[in-house]
Amino acid sequence: MENYQKLLARLAEIGHVSSSLAVLGWDQQCYMPTGGARERAEQFATLGKIAHEMFTGDETRALLEGAESEAAGLAPESDERLTLRVVRRSFDQSSKLPTKLVQDLAKAEAIGHEVWVKARETSNFKAFAPTLEQLLDLSRQKAEHLGYEGGVLYDALLDQFEPGMKTAEVERVFGELRPGLVGLVQEIAAAPQIDDSVLKRDYPEENQKAFADFLVAKLGFDFSRGRQDKAVHPFCTSFGRDDVRITTRYDKNWLPCAIMGSIHETGHALYEQGFDAKDADTPLANAAGLGVHESQSRLWENIIGRSRNFWAVYLPEAKKHFKASLKDVDVETFYRAINKVEPSTIRVEADEVTYNLHIMLRFELEKQMLSGQLAVKDVPEAWNAKMQEYLGIQPSDDAHGCLQDVHWSGGMFGYFPTYALGTLLSAQLYDKALRDEPGIEAELSRGDFGSLLNWLRENVHKPGARYLPAELVERVCGEPAQSRSYLSYLRGKFGQLYGLN
Amino acid sequence: MENYQKLLARLAEIGHVSSSLAVLGWDQQCYMPTGGARERAEQFATLGKIAHEMFTGDETRALLEGAESEAAGLAPESDERLTLRVVRRSFDQSSKLPTKLVQDLAKAEAIGHEVWVKARETSNFKAFAPTLEQLLDLSRQKAEHLGYEGGVLYDALLDQFEPGMKTAEVERVFGELRPGLVGLVQEIAAAPQIDDSVLKRDYPEENQKAFADFLVAKLGFDFSRGRQDKAVHPFCTSFGRDDVRITTRYDKNWLPCAIMGSIHETGHALYEQGFDAKDADTPLANAAGLGVHESQSRLWENIIGRSRNFWAVYLPEAKKHFKASLKDVDVETFYRAINKVEPSTIRVEADEVTYNLHIMLRFELEKQMLSGQLAVKDVPEAWNAKMQEYLGIQPSDDAHGCLQDVHWSGGMFGYFPTYALGTLLSAQLYDKALRDEPGIEAELSRGDFGSLLNWLRENVHKPGARYLPAELVERVCGEPAQSRSYLSYLRGKFGQLYGLN
Repeated sequence: MENYQKLLARLAEIGHVSSSLAVLGWDQQCYMPTGGARERAEQFATLGKIAHEMFTGDETRALLEGAESEAAGLAPESDERLTLRVVRRSFDQSSKLPTKLVQDLAKAEAIGHEVWVKARETSNFKAFAPTLEQLLDLSRQKAEHLGYEGGVLYDALLDQFEPGMKTAEVERVFGELRPGLVGLVQEIAAAPQIDDSVLKRDYPEENQKAFADFLVAKLGFDFSRGRQDKAVHPFCTSFGRDDVRITTRYDKNWLPCAIMGSIHETGHALYEQGFDAKDADTPLANAAGLGVHESQSRLWENIIGRSRNFWAVYLPEAKKHFKASLKDVDVETFYRAINKVEPSTIRVEADEVTYNLHIMLRFELEKQMLSGQLAVKDVPEAWNAKMQEYLGIQPSDDAHGCLQDVHWSGGMFGYFPTYALGTLLSAQLYDKALRDEPGIEAELSRGDFGSLLNWLRENVHKPGARYLPAELVERVCGEPAQSRSYLSYLRGKFGQLYGLN
Repeated sequence: MENYQKLLARLAEIGHVSSSLAVLGWDQQCYMPTGGARERAEQFATLGKIAHEMFTGDETRALLEGAESEAAGLAPESDERLTLRVVRRSFDQSSKLPTKLVQDLAKAEAIGHEVWVKARETSNFKAFAPTLEQLLDLSRQKAEHLGYEGGVLYDALLDQFEPGMKTAEVERVFGELRPGLVGLVQEIAAAPQIDDSVLKRDYPEENQKAFADFLVAKLGFDFSRGRQDKAVHPFCTSFGRDDVRITTRYDKNWLPCAIMGSIHETGHALYEQGFDAKDADTPLANAAGLGVHESQSRLWENIIGRSRNFWAVYLPEAKKHFKASLKDVDVETFYRAINKVEPSTIRVEADEVTYNLHIMLRFELEKQMLSGQLAVKDVPEAWNAKMQEYLGIQPSDDAHGCLQDVHWSGGMFGYFPTYALGTLLSAQLYDKALRDEPGIEAELSRGDFGSLLNWLRENVHKPGARYLPAELVERVCGEPAQSRSYLSYLRGKFGQLYGLN
């Protein structure tokens, strides 16, 4: 296995360049002064080029081919074969794209982001339309180079974010989910509404920080192998399993912003910190896909972090940090407040019930734009019509409608579905965890997350990138991805909260 | 000038890798969790290797040779010729060393650091001696490869930190300085001592931070092109002239630790932020040498930051931050306290008068160790004898004596003299600034640093790496480096403070 060992060493080196890029990105979001932007862009470009050249160059190709020959006789489920499958996938993806197209895309995405920022500020979709057109065109070219079967171009784009996932599979799952969600939204709208004003009281930033750090540690985040900082946008990034950074942001009159954001990012971080130590520096120490990643953040944020059990234990803790604002608040009031359902035009502010409808809307429009069925100029109208159909509301302007998300300006078509797939998977995994470990709920009611985290470690985190998302779901749950668990979770929880039948 | 342009583009790319390494170093010192150490070491090794290979490779060599031919007809003082001189110097230094020696040194330094940390903890010089022996041997080999004239091996090592500087020149300057310093120390010891207890009162860290940030901005540090953070050791690092980071540390019962440390690092940072904008990304946007760098930090920290003028304006500001501890303190008491002279065994705690004697001791021992005149086993004894001779005190143990500094464990022989050269130069430059701009002192008495900073910008900062340190001193001051200005500054200031004749 000489080629295989050399390949691993080379990939580890490339990984060190990539993780250096991640440090540069983290600093840019958390601490970089404005003047640093020019040099930072140059650093990204230079290290990005170096990593790309190292990965797609002839040396890597030869080592990969040699290693594949060496491993041909091993079992398909051996770590060597699984590793080579991961490498082959990303090697083919990286090397199938002509350098010219990669450069054109990078440039269009950089310009696209600037144009989008300005267009959103002035709610001027027309200013963004030509850029969107160009990004769609380049993404179609990209899909042609990556290749796809059965005429489904969207498959090639989706596959970048959720390896092996097919558009038809997403349509099947979303098709099951949609009527249940729309119906639930309507039932809730007709019920008496929840008062969440307690969350809008005065919550000083430094107390929020102390409480968020406390919760993050309680959930199992290892502060000797990571840290939490403040940033404009919450995110999780990793420089290897032993240095995982999360960020949060603070709104002094909206407690869930920082607290639920921190729990969400902790879910991502537990996955990254949970890869097997023996896989460190290898291609296996990676997420199976973005949907699986999102299943971890959603599980901790929503199923755990918005549960009655959780706040029964941790509201008393919260009261130590926010003496004045939470003094008169009981668990039931707090639990109801953080679970208020209210259709909103903004995806990132959406509650558990309405969130996936935002995703479906984007998934449907993306497919239509890419196929040419929907002209770019007609996007605002189509957006607003779908919003009316799914949520019964319309945005006040395009800034709060089709211009709200950053993704399209960065050419990230095929990304949105992973948010919803992750949400569905969170409930499916949790159901299975409870069946495997019946003691979990009793532990949770004592504020102890050990058994649940341990189950996730063994079943989801440690396998890392060994299995495609669909394979992982089958292995762990004994069935394909489904929406039944999530719908049942929502009906149970919100049926009780809103007094539905 | 096609080769020249291509060379600049390649050097800019290499610069982006180097500045990425600086970001990794900054994060390591300021924010990295302990678990991140392993991956960080790998990132350093990988990016360091990439930068080294890019710089010493055949492509750079060919471009450099081509560019030198193209520029042969230009004036020696043209930016092209000056740029090529800088590049040739460092290219030769980097490529003269065999890869094997570079690797052996890197390994010995890494191990050396660990061994030194433990040896210092237990004050066990014997545990460090074999490592020191090995580092001396490798450094001698390094000097042989780098080359030197007239049998002065130390020249080759000194030249790495202070380009063009000769050992004989350092000996000449130190020879002038030593008797004056030793005499002044003795006179001060015989005079009534200063009471600095006001600086040991209660100074909460967050107030220190606010006051330090205030002063740093007042001195001219541009916070849109840099920031100040907390770290175990104060330092200044740069990712280009538009992103310069400084750090400080806090001792809540010793105000000068953070405040004077911040002013010191600001001096370094003003140099880095002050390189000419048109030189950005070129080899000219660098310091002339470490001595010149240190002249900037010492000038701001000591000549400005420990002056009566400075505290006449800024003590009232300090009182806003430290109401209780400074309420009863007048300018004269404060000024005297921060200028207290007291021989100490620890270099980094030394005052302005005794500091350079610490450096001379190290310079003399380094030369003797490298020449073999002083055996490693005899270093502690030699150290203590010199300490007695220069400062009239002896360390309690080797941890507070010959094991106190990190430099030798990192193979940095030839570094120490730059601290003293910088200190002397700070006074020489300040004298010249006052002659050129007589209005500076009146401005300073109003707490305004504009004219002084402007003079430094034009004479020291903007030239960057165009001139060797000795050339720069000649150009700016019209004379070689001398100790007269510094001795005269010390006698004037401390003569008055201690009531000497």
